Amino acid sequence: VQRLRRLLHQKHARHGDRAFVAEGTKVVSAALDAGAPIEALYFDAGADLSPTAVAVVERARATGVRVFPLAAGVMERVADAVTPQPLCAVIGFSDVALSGLAPGVVVVLVDVRDPGNVGGIIRSADAAGAAGIVVCEGSGDPYNPKTVRASAGSLFHLPLVLAADPEELRRELSARAVATVGAVAHGGVDYAAGGLDEPLALFFGNEAAGLPADLTARLDHLVTVPIAGGAESLNVAMAATVICFELARRRRSGSAAPLSMTP
Amino acid sequence: VQRLRRLLHQKHARHGDRAFVAEGTKVVSAALDAGAPIEALYFDAGADLSPTAVAVVERARATGVRVFPLAAGVMERVADAVTPQPLCAVIGFSDVALSGLAPGVVVVLVDVRDPGNVGGIIRSADAAGAAGIVVCEGSGDPYNPKTVRASAGSLFHLPLVLAADPEELRRELSARAVATVGAVAHGGVDYAAGGLDEPLALFFGNEAAGLPADLTARLDHLVTVPIAGGAESLNVAMAATVICFELARRRRSGSAAPLSMTP
Repeated sequence: VQRLRRLLHQKHARHGDRAFVAEGTKVVSAALDAGAPIEALYFDAGADLSPTAVAVVERARATGVRVFPLAAGVMERVADAVTPQPLCAVIGFSDVALSGLAPGVVVVLVDVRDPGNVGGIIRSADAAGAAGIVVCEGSGDPYNPKTVRASAGSLFHLPLVLAADPEELRRELSARAVATVGAVAHGGVDYAAGGLDEPLALFFGNEAAGLPADLTARLDHLVTVPIAGGAESLNVAMAATVICFELARRRRSGSAAPLSMTP
Repeated sequence: VQRLRRLLHQKHARHGDRAFVAEGTKVVSAALDAGAPIEALYFDAGADLSPTAVAVVERARATGVRVFPLAAGVMERVADAVTPQPLCAVIGFSDVALSGLAPGVVVVLVDVRDPGNVGGIIRSADAAGAAGIVVCEGSGDPYNPKTVRASAGSLFHLPLVLAADPEELRRELSARAVATVGAVAHGGVDYAAGGLDEPLALFFGNEAAGLPADLTARLDHLVTVPIAGGAESLNVAMAATVICFELARRRRSGSAAPLSMTP
């Protein structure tokens, strides 16, 4: 229980142990579906478990996951969620190296801070068929419990890379012939104007400040989602969703260049 | 102060008075920019106001808005926001009738409950150049303080219609030759396949249950945002954003049919 609490509330504990907590029946069920490395499952022995929750516990047991009951009230004290969940699981990290991503569209988060935005972008990028997501240091931790919830299971599907420095990452992507594209609020070309050929990496910046100027100066392309009406700006998660789905649309309609990834 | 509290926390108080509270410098500033009917502005006399906040108070005064200081601590007790804001304003409703909307794309919310989703859709629809939004009874109140925050000022730009019954609304739209289009998680045509000619109304349903079956059966078209990867679904606000921006993209690229609205 001490460990659960630390893994939920302390980023350094998660990254030290390379493990995090997923809360709730739906998210744990998604982890089981995806074959995520579940270390242990905990359920609230004081709660009246739903049939779905019971089924998840049974499936976990059947796949050899250690299952522990928690005394009534313990889950509420430990949990991050406002609505305490009947079960949670400790799951090992399964991030990959950049070289482990398939060719296609890679989303890169530079200083995206809000856990809900990070989780929402993971969900949208997965739904739009992105090849993976790179979370740079300075961004919200992808294993933050709020992010895990907001990702709605996509954290277990979308290959994740943890990167240190965005400039180092940019160089590595360029060396792999992946085009680097920054999303900027103003001054980029219309994201829908075409010309974004895969493989490419889409960089998104901080909610308030955007991408750092020294980074945008070095990226291959800058794109902007044109804003109509009186709206001041688009939330970063919304902008990422719009661009990822535009790339998915082009892929479906066959207008995108054929995929290829060198070396 | 009693009234502020009621307007923040009680939907029936807001709709009885046809007034709501906007919290925070940015949102109140957006209300001033848009010429929203501000009845009164309150600021925290105990707070060290930022220069931006002071400027907003001065602008409000200059336009004849009544300005009241609140004793230290009052704003914290009244406020809805977790981070108490230095100022807030009571603003009159300015919803319009359906006939008051310009032709184009109208977004219709049927049973979209989460205040953050309602506000996020208002923001995205505005940014994508929609003609307006219709919020049906049963959806989250567009004047809920969380929704006002999430709309990031777009509530003051995007024409808003409050509607009672979605089926009645559908009939009224059809009578005006506006195509009715439902967004469904599965089984609709690809939203990007074309053929959605303006004027049209996009209906979005409940976060869990989607649109009611008797309504979808009567709509002119059903569209789906295809989901790639292992993602289970797209959040309703993300789906609305994707579809609204696809329509905006087509409008920019000139591939949409010329706008016309009868009668």
